[in-house]
Amino acid sequence: MTIQSDNNQLLVQAIEQMKASIDNGIFKEKELLPSEFELAKKLGISRTVLKEVLHILEEENIISIKHGFGTIVNAKPLFSTGIEQLGSVTDMIRQSGKIPGTQYISTELIQPTENDIKRFKPKTMDIIAQIKRVRTADGQPVVYCIDKVDKQLLPLEQVHTQDSLFSLLESYSNKYISYAIANIEPIGYHDQISATLNCDPDQALLLLKQMHYTQDDEPVLYSANYFRADMFSFSVLRKRV
Amino acid sequence: MTIQSDNNQLLVQAIEQMKASIDNGIFKEKELLPSEFELAKKLGISRTVLKEVLHILEEENIISIKHGFGTIVNAKPLFSTGIEQLGSVTDMIRQSGKIPGTQYISTELIQPTENDIKRFKPKTMDIIAQIKRVRTADGQPVVYCIDKVDKQLLPLEQVHTQDSLFSLLESYSNKYISYAIANIEPIGYHDQISATLNCDPDQALLLLKQMHYTQDDEPVLYSANYFRADMFSFSVLRKRV
Repeated sequence: MTIQSDNNQLLVQAIEQMKASIDNGIFKEKELLPSEFELAKKLGISRTVLKEVLHILEEENIISIKHGFGTIVNAKPLFSTGIEQLGSVTDMIRQSGKIPGTQYISTELIQPTENDIKRFKPKTMDIIAQIKRVRTADGQPVVYCIDKVDKQLLPLEQVHTQDSLFSLLESYSNKYISYAIANIEPIGYHDQISATLNCDPDQALLLLKQMHYTQDDEPVLYSANYFRADMFSFSVLRKRV
Repeated sequence: MTIQSDNNQLLVQAIEQMKASIDNGIFKEKELLPSEFELAKKLGISRTVLKEVLHILEEENIISIKHGFGTIVNAKPLFSTGIEQLGSVTDMIRQSGKIPGTQYISTELIQPTENDIKRFKPKTMDIIAQIKRVRTADGQPVVYCIDKVDKQLLPLEQVHTQDSLFSLLESYSNKYISYAIANIEPIGYHDQISATLNCDPDQALLLLKQMHYTQDDEPVLYSANYFRADMFSFSVLRKRV
């Protein structure tokens, strides 16, 4: 056996040991790992091999190396879904076995912005209803939602009684949301929203800006949903063009 | 006309004026806006109305408010694409009218990690080729790519001669990539990669971790692509489940 393959074996063993320690909760999510000196000693490897171990774990998104600060164990997402499949946030939380809840921030009537007018075309509206909410899973804030909707379609006084706007649109105005066109944006830190979602400063958010349509292509609901990336994991099937 | 509707009209006018100033380059991308005092004076509105204007522009992702620092004009993405459509990064850059280029960071043979083994199942490999590259558009770094591939499928000595691994896989091993399953992850700041891509500290990245398959479902290529979010904009059609 060559020195090179010996080293490779040590590397693979050390990676497996680190993953097991994280799975077993010896190294806890969102907490700092021990110092490189201690880790190398514990794993019985050199600092050079340890650096490679940490580098590979970082590439697999299991840890985050913060230079000058330390290395943090990343949290595993609670909710996984194909992004092509549109469900209400309520349903996503329920399907993960958690209890969905809502904290209402504001419900107001506003003038549509220039972008709102473009989004809701060909529909024209003088006034739209804007609802800001924090969605919770077992009481923990996980998504920040800004929804905009034609005030004719939604009984604003009933918004607080029903978590799912999808359901409310169906029962009140017989509008069944059939699809949405979503823009996908990563957000590093948002001064106001990250704080509301109890995010650490380095916790990224995935913003989906979605225009929802009925099966007759009627635009009915615009949502900006900020998902905590440590809680939600989205995948997509990409077909070659 | 009521005081309320007067205020609304002022608000809408001020938003349009701000957008025009950004479009015309009076307020430049990635630069600080003037102080709130100056802006309110320039727009002829109160500080209260200005705060609302800035808040709406932030929600539309046109500006970013950094408390204690100032307000920055966001850059507009250069490349827009439906995320369901899989094209090579080379093609994406070319389609936007820019010249694609590549800076090679490293090409090496490595042992597959535990996750690599899972990803490439049922294929087994002792050694895989790992290629790290920065993709450029008109010379500017825009995507950081880590590719992993069975070394039998790719002539490593030719990797430097051909920007597109998709094309190289086709011509060398007759493997045509038909689809990929991608995980979508927002990244706030990545110590090493953000610096390589010349990102500002608050420039987020969109990470697509993609396993690529042939039409016979053979796993052939794994890519972790870090896209500068100010350069690339991805959308998706979500259908109701």
